[in-house]
Amino acid sequence: MPRPPSPDTLNRLKEAVGAGAWLDAPADLAPFAVDFRQLYRGVTPLVLLPRDTAAVARILAVCDADEVALVPHGGNTSYCGGATPDESGTQVVLCLRRLNRVRQVDAGNFSMLVEAGCTLAQAQTAAAGAARLFPLSLGSEGTAQIGGNLSTNAGGTAVLRYGMMRDLVLGLEVVLADGRVMSTLKSLRKDNTGYDVKSLFIGAEGTLGIITAASLKLFPQPADAATALVGVDSPQHALDLLGRLRTAAGDQVTTFELIPQRAVELTVEHVPGVANPLAQRAPWYLLVELTSPNPHQGLDALMTAELEAAAADGLVIDAMLASSIAQSLAMWKLRESVPEAQRHHGASLKHDVSVPVSAVPRLIEAGSALVQRLAPEGEIVSYGHLGDGNLHFNVSQRAGADRDAFMARGAVLERAVFDLVDSLGGSISAEHGIGRLKAAEFAARADPVELSVMRDLKRTLDPKGILNPGKVLI
Amino acid sequence: MPRPPSPDTLNRLKEAVGAGAWLDAPADLAPFAVDFRQLYRGVTPLVLLPRDTAAVARILAVCDADEVALVPHGGNTSYCGGATPDESGTQVVLCLRRLNRVRQVDAGNFSMLVEAGCTLAQAQTAAAGAARLFPLSLGSEGTAQIGGNLSTNAGGTAVLRYGMMRDLVLGLEVVLADGRVMSTLKSLRKDNTGYDVKSLFIGAEGTLGIITAASLKLFPQPADAATALVGVDSPQHALDLLGRLRTAAGDQVTTFELIPQRAVELTVEHVPGVANPLAQRAPWYLLVELTSPNPHQGLDALMTAELEAAAADGLVIDAMLASSIAQSLAMWKLRESVPEAQRHHGASLKHDVSVPVSAVPRLIEAGSALVQRLAPEGEIVSYGHLGDGNLHFNVSQRAGADRDAFMARGAVLERAVFDLVDSLGGSISAEHGIGRLKAAEFAARADPVELSVMRDLKRTLDPKGILNPGKVLI
Repeated sequence: MPRPPSPDTLNRLKEAVGAGAWLDAPADLAPFAVDFRQLYRGVTPLVLLPRDTAAVARILAVCDADEVALVPHGGNTSYCGGATPDESGTQVVLCLRRLNRVRQVDAGNFSMLVEAGCTLAQAQTAAAGAARLFPLSLGSEGTAQIGGNLSTNAGGTAVLRYGMMRDLVLGLEVVLADGRVMSTLKSLRKDNTGYDVKSLFIGAEGTLGIITAASLKLFPQPADAATALVGVDSPQHALDLLGRLRTAAGDQVTTFELIPQRAVELTVEHVPGVANPLAQRAPWYLLVELTSPNPHQGLDALMTAELEAAAADGLVIDAMLASSIAQSLAMWKLRESVPEAQRHHGASLKHDVSVPVSAVPRLIEAGSALVQRLAPEGEIVSYGHLGDGNLHFNVSQRAGADRDAFMARGAVLERAVFDLVDSLGGSISAEHGIGRLKAAEFAARADPVELSVMRDLKRTLDPKGILNPGKVLI
Repeated sequence: MPRPPSPDTLNRLKEAVGAGAWLDAPADLAPFAVDFRQLYRGVTPLVLLPRDTAAVARILAVCDADEVALVPHGGNTSYCGGATPDESGTQVVLCLRRLNRVRQVDAGNFSMLVEAGCTLAQAQTAAAGAARLFPLSLGSEGTAQIGGNLSTNAGGTAVLRYGMMRDLVLGLEVVLADGRVMSTLKSLRKDNTGYDVKSLFIGAEGTLGIITAASLKLFPQPADAATALVGVDSPQHALDLLGRLRTAAGDQVTTFELIPQRAVELTVEHVPGVANPLAQRAPWYLLVELTSPNPHQGLDALMTAELEAAAADGLVIDAMLASSIAQSLAMWKLRESVPEAQRHHGASLKHDVSVPVSAVPRLIEAGSALVQRLAPEGEIVSYGHLGDGNLHFNVSQRAGADRDAFMARGAVLERAVFDLVDSLGGSISAEHGIGRLKAAEFAARADPVELSVMRDLKRTLDPKGILNPGKVLI
């Protein structure tokens, strides 16, 4: 068990980073002690802002010797409170934002070396500067940092084509709990020398070690794209269309996002500048994008032909192909404004879940029945990454419903939705991680043997329990 | 440390699998005690052939209680002696070939559940039966089993497009060293609940647990393909062509294999039915394949246009596009016969290594100088998966050279090649694993911190050291 840091420990931590690289005035500490969703308000005595890996190693050596708990902190965009110190006032914050160098971009090897404190947008820009694509893409990319993307195995809107963050990693540099530096920053496509140690740290939310740098995969930049908004009758028709598009276009299908009619209405109502371009109303909409590095791929023609054929077969109610970048951006804005529209509309209960792709229609059908029965003050706004089987199965407070009565349904509804997800072989956290928010549900629902292995791994890599205590495993 | 099994232990192991599911007659045991390359001849008192996961769990429970060592065994195609018991006569063999059910193929979810004892070819066939592709492809696929493919993180000729075995896994069922069954056979594209435990067992060569089943990713079947044999001047020109093809065709570039002139000559000389279809001689040849699930993709035209443009720019000496399936198969036969031609030609020294793709020309240039200096009785036949940075940097005995003098160069040359690979940020085992063959070199060359973490993980998951002792970590 970690201990409260003594004044001497705090002084040695300050020495470890050096002058100008720490904060301990209450006003300076406050932003580091509350999470993005304001679910948690913690207290910390000290924020450390190291500039290089060696300083991180010195910090960990002090924490290990004195058994002081450390909370790694990046862009502070966690949805699960993963980067926020607890209320005890004993946890020191390690902010990695000054480790923000792009160490190398190797266009010929389609790889780059970046430090944990680079924002995702900064990494994307560095890749583009070498005519390459770093494909991870998500709403908070201007703020979220690579270290956080790695530590939460971030997802987003291009997973169907490029995979999650774990799939984009070639090598890692990690500072272990005792301050030793594991330098496995190789940039190889194939390396079968021993165990896959690096993958343990990806998605571990800083509970097994501190990631300080990564070697990441790059791809050719897209030079042709076709974006369409498509109206369909049902999630099953959406899945059928996905199957046809994958057969016609293979991995050129980069994005396949599901948006219900109600989300489109809320977005048009609450977010300035958003309109529904389709003439025909449909119960469900899809944002579909094909991309290719070949500028002469003819993706518009391919998309048009596939959508026309699908319409002739009764799978598509209406569709519009973006004929300009402005139209494409407008379609993306419709999709990306859904969370903001939900915020404006009232309270919401959120469930970031996944099931096998083929089970999404059953999840939506059975989940909707649960909402009607268990949260009658709410209406379903379930949208997300259909191509990955990942829905944000959210419920918005109905206009005129009592907020407190609605929110009081949260715990019972969440358990019922998670039970449903479990029964379909799904996951209670598809892309947002566990953090503090879902630690109890995870502990209750995980395979007991796998959970026991995870606890053994935690004890092995962090025997004193100083790395981000209270997150992931409790 | 494991102990020799007593007669009582052997009897309880037989009871654990039941009648007809074990072998202990010397003639029956012999094939399980020698590896494919005949590098090692071991001794085992008992081979167990369980039919289901529960029997594997009972076996491990006995081995755990009695501290008896167990060697998992699949299709016995390891190049590194990974599945062969040692000479002590104390290691029991666990053969998984009867766990060979395809439990489920879910075409809608692009996934399937298969048991460890399925051959790779059987898994490919099951996927094809549902109009899906399981893309792992390698020379021994008719014999190699899924459990071995997983335990060695197998590679092959389609890694450029589809990744290695690790990249194709959605979930695993694993029997732990103490007999507990970890059932994490989910078939999800996104699941961020806790640590990536399953990845630890992939590539661990059975030293951390026994994989009994896996959920694997499927893909649309290719319906269009273009195959070409291309002559180029240098590895750098080959890399330049790869960059142009990836830009033009993206992930439709499925295969990009490098073959030196000398390997083509040896193949034509030693393997019946192999011919070089190109009119112009070239120092280097490439087997290039584009594939797409869309039958109307026009890949032949795309390949022709790209090769003509590259020829006009001086990158391509000569090229031939396969105009029939027979021609395509003949090109593949040329590539796949290289190891056989090497065997017929004489002794060889083999190095399965990788470097960053952009460093392959330097590896070939500096490696060739090493061979001239350190093994003058040999000539270089280095071929392989250029798109992955993975070369089989092999050296064949020159005609007329003394075999013993040549083979005596092996140890010094291997150390020099591995030193070169290390200096280029490469790997001394790209796709064949460590097994017993490379355990000492791996221990000497690995990052000491990472190696120490691997040893800690081994102690955590196999505290009694009963799982495949002497492999990977020594």
